Amino acid sequence: MVATHPRKRDFPVSQVRRYLEPGPVVLVSSKWQGRTNIMTMGWHMVLEFTPALVGCLISSGNHSFGMIRDSGECVINLPTTALTDEVVGIGNTTGAEIDKFKEFGLTPGKARQVAAPLIRECHANFECRLYDDVLVDRYNFFIFEVVKAHVTASPEHPETLHYTGDGVFMVSGRIIDRKALFRPWML
Amino acid sequence: MVATHPRKRDFPVSQVRRYLEPGPVVLVSSKWQGRTNIMTMGWHMVLEFTPALVGCLISSGNHSFGMIRDSGECVINLPTTALTDEVVGIGNTTGAEIDKFKEFGLTPGKARQVAAPLIRECHANFECRLYDDVLVDRYNFFIFEVVKAHVTASPEHPETLHYTGDGVFMVSGRIIDRKALFRPWML
Repeated sequence: MVATHPRKRDFPVSQVRRYLEPGPVVLVSSKWQGRTNIMTMGWHMVLEFTPALVGCLISSGNHSFGMIRDSGECVINLPTTALTDEVVGIGNTTGAEIDKFKEFGLTPGKARQVAAPLIRECHANFECRLYDDVLVDRYNFFIFEVVKAHVTASPEHPETLHYTGDGVFMVSGRIIDRKALFRPWML
Repeated sequence: MVATHPRKRDFPVSQVRRYLEPGPVVLVSSKWQGRTNIMTMGWHMVLEFTPALVGCLISSGNHSFGMIRDSGECVINLPTTALTDEVVGIGNTTGAEIDKFKEFGLTPGKARQVAAPLIRECHANFECRLYDDVLVDRYNFFIFEVVKAHVTASPEHPETLHYTGDGVFMVSGRIIDRKALFRPWML
């Protein structure tokens, strides 16, 4: 169980690529008809800065699929390596059988723009509304707009988990700074 | 300049998530009307195991956009941290002005299924054909099928670059193995 609830500040939604572009595994929380759920998700990408669009693959076999499609909302939460066991456990269970917040000792927090709960133990929370469902039937591909972002100020570069399949995660955290080599308009 | 050309083996296309799901920056090579190009890409995701689908955001402002759309092909190449300077340089220049293979000392290799060249210095090469262009006009979102994959056998987990924007990359390489906690059918 994780007890820490890092304090977060508002973060510009146009800059969420800062946390999502590196490709971390995320936890997606949802709420529908009074019940909440959490899923682990590795297939996602940034699609646009403004509006702040994120593409996500949510398999129709997941309990979260219907909850997110029907509510048109979710929260994308960024776990650090401190939550590795929760990430694995959430990915290996189904919300059809258990209450994942309770089972994994996670704390729901109130979002500002959506009904779905934040996961307070995560490093960042991105409140999302379904923006375009044109490819949901064909590919289970959801396009969300991030409408509100909350980020822990420190550490600036937490260790995140990047899934390779087969139960193995790569860990990111160390930084290479090449800002000096970029042309200003390319940053 | 990078001199090494790691020897590669064929790799099952249904398993390319192993390399792409962690979210590394990749180099995308293309060929059209006798000319080649390379772009740096951070916005991509796995969409399906079989067919092996990958979604990619290629801005219409990139020189590669037309080359890839018109040829319907590209190669997604996986650089390691050994190619950091090339990744930055390729991302900060345009193929409208320079020959990127020559400028950055990279070696084109012959692909099997597509006309676009492999980048031999990269850790892995994924030959891609355009599978669905339904969201190209609206979002610059290309869906490719990986039709052939080549991967360096060792190291098993090379250090890869994960872009955060602002000239800063996170580095992945260290591994956390939780295979024992997964249910077999979830792997």
